[in-house]
Amino acid sequence: TPESADRTALPGVATGLAVTGTGGDVLFVEASLADGESGASGLTITGQLGEVMQESAQIALSYLRSRGAELELPVADLKDRGIHLHVPAGAVPKDGPSAGITMTTALASLLSGRAARSEVGMTGEVSLTGRVLPVGGVKQKLLAAHRAGISTVLIPARNEPDLDDVPEDVRSQLTVHPVSDVREVLELALEPAEAQVPAVA
Amino acid sequence: TPESADRTALPGVATGLAVTGTGGDVLFVEASLADGESGASGLTITGQLGEVMQESAQIALSYLRSRGAELELPVADLKDRGIHLHVPAGAVPKDGPSAGITMTTALASLLSGRAARSEVGMTGEVSLTGRVLPVGGVKQKLLAAHRAGISTVLIPARNEPDLDDVPEDVRSQLTVHPVSDVREVLELALEPAEAQVPAVA
Amino acid sequence: TPESADRTALPGVATGLAVTGTGGDVLFVEASLADGESGASGLTITGQLGEVMQESAQIALSYLRSRGAELELPVADLKDRGIHLHVPAGAVPKDGPSAGITMTTALASLLSGRAARSEVGMTGEVSLTGRVLPVGGVKQKLLAAHRAGISTVLIPARNEPDLDDVPEDVRSQLTVHPVSDVREVLELALEPAEAQVPAVA
Amino acid sequence: TPESADRTALPGVATGLAVTGTGGDVLFVEASLADGESGASGLTITGQLGEVMQESAQIALSYLRSRGAELELPVADLKDRGIHLHVPAGAVPKDGPSAGITMTTALASLLSGRAARSEVGMTGEVSLTGRVLPVGGVKQKLLAAHRAGISTVLIPARNEPDLDDVPEDVRSQLTVHPVSDVREVLELALEPAEAQVPAVA
Amino acid sequence: TPESADRTALPGVATGLAVTGTGGDVLFVEASLADGESGASGLTITGQLGEVMQESAQIALSYLRSRGAELELPVADLKDRGIHLHVPAGAVPKDGPSAGITMTTALASLLSGRAARSEVGMTGEVSLTGRVLPVGGVKQKLLAAHRAGISTVLIPARNEPDLDDVPEDVRSQLTVHPVSDVREVLELALEPAEAQVPAVA
Amino acid sequence: TPESADRTALPGVATGLAVTGTGGDVLFVEASLADGESGASGLTITGQLGEVMQESAQIALSYLRSRGAELELPVADLKDRGIHLHVPAGAVPKDGPSAGITMTTALASLLSGRAARSEVGMTGEVSLTGRVLPVGGVKQKLLAAHRAGISTVLIPARNEPDLDDVPEDVRSQLTVHPVSDVREVLELALEPAEAQVPAVA
Ligand SMILES: [Ca+2]
Ligand SMILES: [Ca+2]
Ligand SMILES: [Ca+2]
Ligand SMILES: [Ca+2]
Ligand SMILES: [Ca+2]
Ligand SMILES: [Ca+2]
Ligand SMILES: [Ca+2]
Ligand SMILES: [Ca+2]
Ligand SMILES: [Ca+2]
Ligand SMILES: [Ca+2]
Ligand SMILES: [Ca+2]
Ligand SMILES: [Ca+2]
Repeated sequence: TPESADRTALPGVATGLAVTGTGGDVLFVEASLADGESGASGLTITGQLGEVMQESAQIALSYLRSRGAELELPVADLKDRGIHLHVPAGAVPKDGPSAGITMTTALASLLSGRAARSEVGMTGEVSLTGRVLPVGGVKQKLLAAHRAGISTVLIPARNEPDLDDVPEDVRSQLTVHPVSDVREVLELALEPAEAQVPAVA
Repeated sequence: TPESADRTALPGVATGLAVTGTGGDVLFVEASLADGESGASGLTITGQLGEVMQESAQIALSYLRSRGAELELPVADLKDRGIHLHVPAGAVPKDGPSAGITMTTALASLLSGRAARSEVGMTGEVSLTGRVLPVGGVKQKLLAAHRAGISTVLIPARNEPDLDDVPEDVRSQLTVHPVSDVREVLELALEPAEAQVPAVA
Repeated sequence: TPESADRTALPGVATGLAVTGTGGDVLFVEASLADGESGASGLTITGQLGEVMQESAQIALSYLRSRGAELELPVADLKDRGIHLHVPAGAVPKDGPSAGITMTTALASLLSGRAARSEVGMTGEVSLTGRVLPVGGVKQKLLAAHRAGISTVLIPARNEPDLDDVPEDVRSQLTVHPVSDVREVLELALEPAEAQVPAVA
Repeated sequence: TPESADRTALPGVATGLAVTGTGGDVLFVEASLADGESGASGLTITGQLGEVMQESAQIALSYLRSRGAELELPVADLKDRGIHLHVPAGAVPKDGPSAGITMTTALASLLSGRAARSEVGMTGEVSLTGRVLPVGGVKQKLLAAHRAGISTVLIPARNEPDLDDVPEDVRSQLTVHPVSDVREVLELALEPAEAQVPAVA
Repeated sequence: TPESADRTALPGVATGLAVTGTGGDVLFVEASLADGESGASGLTITGQLGEVMQESAQIALSYLRSRGAELELPVADLKDRGIHLHVPAGAVPKDGPSAGITMTTALASLLSGRAARSEVGMTGEVSLTGRVLPVGGVKQKLLAAHRAGISTVLIPARNEPDLDDVPEDVRSQLTVHPVSDVREVLELALEPAEAQVPAVA
Repeated sequence: TPESADRTALPGVATGLAVTGTGGDVLFVEASLADGESGASGLTITGQLGEVMQESAQIALSYLRSRGAELELPVADLKDRGIHLHVPAGAVPKDGPSAGITMTTALASLLSGRAARSEVGMTGEVSLTGRVLPVGGVKQKLLAAHRAGISTVLIPARNEPDLDDVPEDVRSQLTVHPVSDVREVLELALEPAEAQVPAVA
């Protein structure tokens, strides 16, 4: 979509799917790393997120801090550089853990310098070990993705049965990837390294 | 206007437009950097700001910390020098993200040593990547700018349709720039580097 | 069980038994240690845990910090590396100290590089000196373990009398180990060092 | 007055004018800097001050930290020495920003070693850039100053019109200086450097 | 008693007497010191203690930090090693200062490597100077000690008159030591240095 | 009195006079400094004190940190050694600033190694510059001092008129010193340096 193409043009932004008070909606998770010379440190979380979403941000970061080296991500960039995760105002997502893989993707995009694919939206809780755990609202989230022009959707493998509830005409226009580990998410959601724009350094 | 000319005479102050309980109003965002020898650190935010406005201050700072070097701003000045953002008492703005570009401009003015143009007022949410996102209350804000003698107004590009609601006699007396990236904001809102007063050092 | 086998495949995850609002249930405690180069520090606890469960996490960590060397665990790994304990969403356990030995096991698994045995579930308060103290809800917890396909259960020695309340058909299908010191827990719950996968380093 | 002469005998104390629940009153703002060897740091604020008054203390300090060197104040004294601002019990001022210039004067007095003139009382909000902004209650404050034997009063220039409300017999016995920048305040309120007692060192 | 013998087998645990909602009860105070290599610091207090009990823990620690060297305790062990004081779940003591000497004893036991005598229970507020101050509930506490098989009880000297309220058959089976300084407490409550197990080092 | 003689036997304890819910009472303020090797830092305040009393403790400490060297007190002892101010349980004083000079005396006693005179009780607010400011409840406090066997009482000079309210038979048995600066307090309240017991070092 034009909006997600614009928003995800630079590394550090990923497209999530959320349940709001009025159905499903698309949300953008943005991540930034402060210049190492600018004196920032720690994790800042903004966007008026609920307690559980704030915990998801911490889990995404801990996952990358403990497993990021195996993913060939430059985890030392997380040291002495302030990390900021932000969800810009817009649709207000209900609190819950389902933005976990979107937050992990935004951070991994920033670290790798690989922008997120603008045609991909996702939902899923992430565990500290990188497992993708099932979430609620899959039907509303897929309807929202479809409305917003998203063509590819990542859902937790354990949510596959929920696809039965999605109207066939919508379902048939979406490519849905059930995933069970966050490594699969990153492979599907990030532009290939070949097309890599330089990482924020 | 005399007031905004006085208030923005020195680098570090930018003129914003806000919705208050009684319509629109002009507000001034002030930024200071402590002398490196004076032992301050971190970000102090004052002015009895709401939660969302405080988050906007953090986003403005994170944007400059991560992208400031590309803008040729001396981001190392943000290290080991306490940063203070203040909105002096006066009109009480409703809480919201629309002071984001004003806060970013005040900080960039301070870092660059380029004072803000006193004839420019602005409104717009800023994202971590520097996108200018749409806000509410554009009509009241333009009426307030006009009343206060502001001649040039910056609004988010996605708010252009709202200009239809502004009375023609007001609209015709204002130069309105729709902007979509904070780089455009800084180019339009800061005095040229040639007219630069020395940066606070 | 398939789920606990999947969840405990890597070191750092242990299977606990909890009382929830609707009976007993299985919970997974996950632990991670940040890469020493990634700049994390301190203990992060997530999972919307109650006050008493958060204290249990602190006790588990203090136990390992004061006695871990005697257990030949590399306690220096706990320095300058952020520790994160998380209980993923799912069954919401009632607040209480009975996840103490599960939390201790998750951390010891991570430090030793010895994965937890997927067939073992456990419940028990842990004291600062490593004593296993009695807990409530033993009957519901054993029923839940049985339902979930757990074959071996560790309970506090002082809870042995509660086994009388467990239906004989369930009791006979479970191997129950009454334990009084957390050293016994670790011996029974962790894979032998021979089968050791490399520690997170 | 005898009281303000006693209270302002040493550098670090300035006389302010406040609105209380029962009219106007005089208040004393005290500042101290810890001995550099005594291990204190940061800013301590006491006196049961409201939120806005606490922000005024932070603004006063940030002003001096960013602009103090231009005023030839030894701002390095603010590093590694705990700063304490206190308003002793007595009249309870309504919360508001009008003690800003009094707080700035107390701190500048301490740094310069120039005691405050005991015959001077003052009111005014201070901005981060040192502008003196208008306040409320000017009439009650001048009546209180007169009652307390204060002979010279500093008010914000933009409050000059409020002088019309002060009874002529009181007005004629007071020397009133409208001020618009805190530099004017310091020149009028502090004893000349010639009469300087040694700075707290 | 078997339980207190088990709980106090290692240095760092002391037996206290408390008033609960249902009379008197025995409680165990546990202390641990983190391995110096494990990166812990500061004081952690757990056990869902009330505000006053938490203050008692701080007083016990400050007493040892300021006077411990006179007692030939290795106070440097308190530096750079996280201290944890815990009261395991069980009887819920009413909030109050009467666990002060028990907390001091647990910490002194840990530092000295001298285990607490399992036959000794105690109650008493401790002052910063080590004075033992009087407490309430002496009668219920002695009845609880007797029920639990404790044979020796330490009470504040100023509580001696309360012994008149204790039934003669209980009183005659207990050895009661009135104490006025915490040094007496430590002499009576800790195993002699000769029987010393090695200190946690 | 026997009690105050016992409590003030060592440097670091001063006797104050307070208003409680049931009249006046004597209170003891205790101060301790951690051994420099024990790793403590900062100011700890215990005794369930109200907000204003906690501020008094901070003011007492800041006074000594900024002016202590003039009093020939070893203020460097305040660095890298945790300071603890405690008011043991007993009479619950109403919150207020009147323990200020007692807190200052306890700290100065500790630093100087000069014990407080056990026959002296005191009340008075202290300002950051060391002025003794007037307080309430002088009559009840003197009655309480008399009841407790205190023979010498220090009150703020500006409270002298309140002595008229004290019954003549009590007044005639007390030596009352009106004081206006905390230096006078320390001279009257501390044992002479000649009788000095060694400072806590
Ligand atoms: Ca909120
Ligand atoms: Ca893209
Ligand atoms: Ca507020
Ligand atoms: Ca200008
Ligand atoms: Ca919560
Ligand atoms: Ca396994
Ligand atoms: Ca308050
Ligand atoms: Ca003077
Ligand atoms: Ca609680
Ligand atoms: Ca023993
Ligand atoms: Ca309280
Ligand atoms: Ca004495």
